[in-house]
Amino acid sequence: MQYPHEVEILLVEDNPNDAEMAMRALKKNHLANNVLIVHDGAEALDYLYKQGKFKDSQINNRPKIILLDLKLPKVDGKEVLRKIKSDPDKKVIPVIVLTSSKEERDVVESYHLGVNSYIVKPVDFDKFVEAVRDIGFYWLLLNHQ
Amino acid sequence: MQYPHEVEILLVEDNPNDAEMAMRALKKNHLANNVLIVHDGAEALDYLYKQGKFKDSQINNRPKIILLDLKLPKVDGKEVLRKIKSDPDKKVIPVIVLTSSKEERDVVESYHLGVNSYIVKPVDFDKFVEAVRDIGFYWLLLNHQ
Repeated sequence: MQYPHEVEILLVEDNPNDAEMAMRALKKNHLANNVLIVHDGAEALDYLYKQGKFKDSQINNRPKIILLDLKLPKVDGKEVLRKIKSDPDKKVIPVIVLTSSKEERDVVESYHLGVNSYIVKPVDFDKFVEAVRDIGFYWLLLNHQ
Repeated sequence: MQYPHEVEILLVEDNPNDAEMAMRALKKNHLANNVLIVHDGAEALDYLYKQGKFKDSQINNRPKIILLDLKLPKVDGKEVLRKIKSDPDKKVIPVIVLTSSKEERDVVESYHLGVNSYIVKPVDFDKFVEAVRDIGFYWLLLNHQ
């Protein structure tokens, strides 16, 4: 697998269609050069903590933002969020939950765990592309870290 | 003082010029109908906890977002942020710091306290208007609570 030279966006998404849709949206807005896609929560933590298959990689493990799906295999999205936001070193990385769940429980729990922003994936493709574009511009260009 | 019927945005800003500039930016984008401006940190907490001059008001104390300056009289912006983010009931309200400070200490401390987003006020008026517009659209229309 090829890694981007400098990871700006960590995309944690197990659904290949959603991952591809997000990448297309990012590409369309020239935001896709520095995206690393991982497919489950364990892989996300391996990347962030340089362990497992990322142990010896030279890749930077401090992305500018993390786009995090909630329903993930191996380690659940909420558990990944909890780990990041309870680690003083990782806590400063903005985590944007990008999920199809509108369930009140998921929303409230995510805010309680310290999520920076919670976005419900639009079902319509064009709206999804717009949302990903707006997320990218807001967090990469306007937000300060 | 007249309060909006339903507060969507709580703007905590002691500098009258900055408050007016933000209001103009919100008005320009039709986001200004439901903004409550308070001028120091104590007043922000009074509003959020229905105490002091807000004790008997019928105003809703659950805004959709809080735009928070850091350098505030009476109670400092960071203290307001700490109070909100350590209160399970208030924690779910997105807090966006809007400040002229780029100081690393302020940025890192704000993230550690649980800020949702940290925006440095653009000095240029047009850029400031754009930033306030983008903040409003992102948090009121895209973000989910």
